[in-house]
This record gives sequence, structure tokens and C-alpha cells, in this order.
Amino acid sequence: MVEYDGTGYVGWQRQKNGPSIQQSLEEAIYRFCGENVIVYGAGRTDAGVHAFGQVAHFDIQRSTDRSTVRDALNAHLRGKSIAVLEATQAPKSFNARTSARERTYEYRIVNRRAPPALYAGRAWHVGAYLNTESMNEAAQQLVGEHDFTSFRASQCQSLSPVKTLDLLEVRRDDEQVLITARARSFLHHQVRNIVGTLERVGVGKWTVSDVGTVLAARDRRAAGPTAPADGLYLVSVKYGVDTLQT
Amino acid sequence: MVEYDGTGYVGWQRQKNGPSIQQSLEEAIYRFCGENVIVYGAGRTDAGVHAFGQVAHFDIQRSTDRSTVRDALNAHLRGKSIAVLEATQAPKSFNARTSARERTYEYRIVNRRAPPALYAGRAWHVGAYLNTESMNEAAQQLVGEHDFTSFRASQCQSLSPVKTLDLLEVRRDDEQVLITARARSFLHHQVRNIVGTLERVGVGKWTVSDVGTVLAARDRRAAGPTAPADGLYLVSVKYGVDTLQT
Repeated sequence: MVEYDGTGYVGWQRQKNGPSIQQSLEEAIYRFCGENVIVYGAGRTDAGVHAFGQVAHFDIQRSTDRSTVRDALNAHLRGKSIAVLEATQAPKSFNARTSARERTYEYRIVNRRAPPALYAGRAWHVGAYLNTESMNEAAQQLVGEHDFTSFRASQCQSLSPVKTLDLLEVRRDDEQVLITARARSFLHHQVRNIVGTLERVGVGKWTVSDVGTVLAARDRRAAGPTAPADGLYLVSVKYGVDTLQT
Repeated sequence: MVEYDGTGYVGWQRQKNGPSIQQSLEEAIYRFCGENVIVYGAGRTDAGVHAFGQVAHFDIQRSTDRSTVRDALNAHLRGKSIAVLEATQAPKSFNARTSARERTYEYRIVNRRAPPALYAGRAWHVGAYLNTESMNEAAQQLVGEHDFTSFRASQCQSLSPVKTLDLLEVRRDDEQVLITARARSFLHHQVRNIVGTLERVGVGKWTVSDVGTVLAARDRRAAGPTAPADGLYLVSVKYGVDTLQT
């Protein structure tokens, strides 16, 4: 399980134009055991997206124990705002990405006139007051199995736009608005596009029922803008009997 | 009321060797109204110490309204991880530092084997498990009026080492340990020296009653080390009838 501050990274996935979380982990593994491996993550988070509980797997030959792997990788990741929380030996069939049964994301909005200082880069700043009750009411129309074309990025590689959203909850915690989304899997930008749409409801530009219309339209242009990456966190990933999370 | 991430700053107070919060605010005020003023803060936080609710005052000639001051200063503070949460016109006799009746600090420890990634620079990392029940029990011996010489930095400018600690509470929130300290005023490094001492109790090196012995010794060498600045936050400041906090 991996925690990271995605600020300054091009995202989870290796890219030519800057440092990625995946590459940083692969380099730390190389420095630990001299093996060139590919690290597979449960969620391919975008540039600037954070994680409290990303799950990733890799195969190494070196025989070692779990706490050594965790501590050694953390030593090699020093100063990179990436930390390995736990390491464990997985069954041969395990794949962090394809074995995942449930992913939980949280989106954080700082909802006040003044911009965030302590949450700069880690939240979306919305200055206008958000009505979280109507946002949460609107959100319930998206829970369940739907064609989420309206909330799908044009570059999304998923075979189908049909996904099942198990939970979508909007709540206020003082000056922050927290949105939790849970599903087996998500379309590209799905959470950020949903948040950008719910924000329209929160500021009173759209009604609760407008969100149902947006969903039914199956047209990306019907939904709100994509909310910034800064506010998004991959919180946890679950796997059948073994959650792989301690 | 001002929020800031103290990382990269030499502290609240203007210094020759780097940027301070005070200087950043004074420069923003100058850019707003062309007036050279001194900004006085309720707490002169050290290098690396953060604030959710610092209170500061300054005198300007320009006639303006409170929301304009807040918004204009925030515009000039962009990218500095300092935000003015609220501005208000204070009575002539008001002094952010000397009028303060109560200051609340919070200290945050990330208590797990892996170092913090999302709280890097904003928490103290303690890898060994902390027993927060015994820490909290030990803390209660410090509540009340005492001679806090054992917890006072050598460079402390306070006239007397006698202070009254109104609250000292240690609690666990999952992987974090939070320590809240409240008093009319504190000695230099008092909170960090108390935290460094309670940590000794938490890891089992010292007993609960050892902390009473440390206090009675009135000797800085008797207490634990100074906990890092990263974990300390000035949370709020209160003022008689007008709290100046909304």
C-alpha cells in the first residue's frame, strides 16, 4: 500500500515528460535489489492526484521479508513524498489492477472565500458557498449501474461506458466539502467530472434534477467541467478475501 | 486571521536570513495600499511552524472595507502558502499580541513505521508505537500554574518561567497522535519541549510519574528533546469579548 502527494508528478504512469509515481517506485526497487521490474498500480491516477492507499504489485527474485521491502523502499524514496505503508507477499495470481474489487476515491474542496494555504495543491478552492445537501441529493441519481458517457473523458480507454457506482456521498466538514465515490472501477476522469457537475448544483446554477438530465444525455458536453486534480485522493482498494490492507 | 504553511519560512518574525510570514504580509499590504506598516502577530511561530488561525494586526490610513482587505491581500499572497481568512476593523486599543487571552496549539505526530508522504513537513514522524493513554496521563501533571523552566528554551525572552497551562490533551486518531495545548501564553519552545518529553513516555522510555519529576527539576536538561517544528500548528487565539474570529 502506497501513500503519495501527487504534486509535481505526471501521475501514476511512467511518461517521458516528467517523473511519475510508478517510475519512482521502480527506481527504488532497483536500488534495493538491483532488479528491473514493472510496478502495476490499482489506480492509474492522473498528474497531481494523491493517494492515501494506492495498491501496487511487482515481482522480484530476491528472497526477503515484507518489513525489509517496506523499509528499504522508503529509505530509497526519501524526499519524494511517496511512502510504502505496507508490503506483503501476494499469491502468484494476484494483480493489483485486475484483481481489484472496489476502489474508493475522496475529493476535497476548500469552501471559503480565502484560498487554501495548508491545503494548497491538495484541494479544489471554491469560493462560493456550496449547498452540500442538494449536492448529496443530486449525487444519489448517479448511484447504481448507468451509462456514464456524460462523465467520461474523451481519451478514456474503457471498453464500455457502463459502470456501477456503489457509493457517492457529499458531506461538509467545517470549511471543507468531502465527496466519497466507491465503485469496482471508474472511467477516466469520472470522479472529477462528477465533482465538477455537483459543484454546479452546490452553487445553485443547476438543480438537483438537472443531474439526472445530464446522466441521461450520454454526452460529455452536458456535464460540468472537470474538477482540478489537486482535490482527488485514491483512498483505498479492496480485493476479494484478501484486502491486502492492514 | 491568517493560515499558513510554515515550510520554507524562517518563522513569523522578519529576519535577515530568509522570508518570514510577517514580511510576506507587510509586502502584500504595501502592494495593496502603498503603505509601509509593521504587522504584529499573536504568536511568533518558529521556522517551519504552521498556523490555521494566527491573528495579526496592522494600522493603515486607507479607508476600505474588510472583505476588500482580505481579498486584496490574498491576491498579493498568491503562491506563498499564506492566506488571510478574515479581516476586520479592530478597536484602537487592540494589539494582536498583548491583548490575546488564550492561545491554542496543536501538535501532530504521524505514528507508524512508514514516513509521512501527504503530511511530509507537517508532522513529526515517530516510528515506534506511542501509548497515548500514558502520554495523556503524564500530560495532566503539567496542567495548571507551574514553573516551566524544564521546558523553556535557553533563548526564551519571557520575564518569568511561571505559566498556566489550561489544557494539555493527547489523543489518537488512527495513525496520527494529536496533542492540544492551551494557555494564555507560552514560553519559547514550551509546546515542542513538552511533546519531546511526552514522546519519551509514549515509547515507554519514561514512566508517567517521571514527567512530574522533570517538571519539579526546573532544569531544561531534565526534559526530553525539542520535538521538530514541522508538527506544530497555531490553531486559534482568543481575545476577551471580541474573539476576532468568525
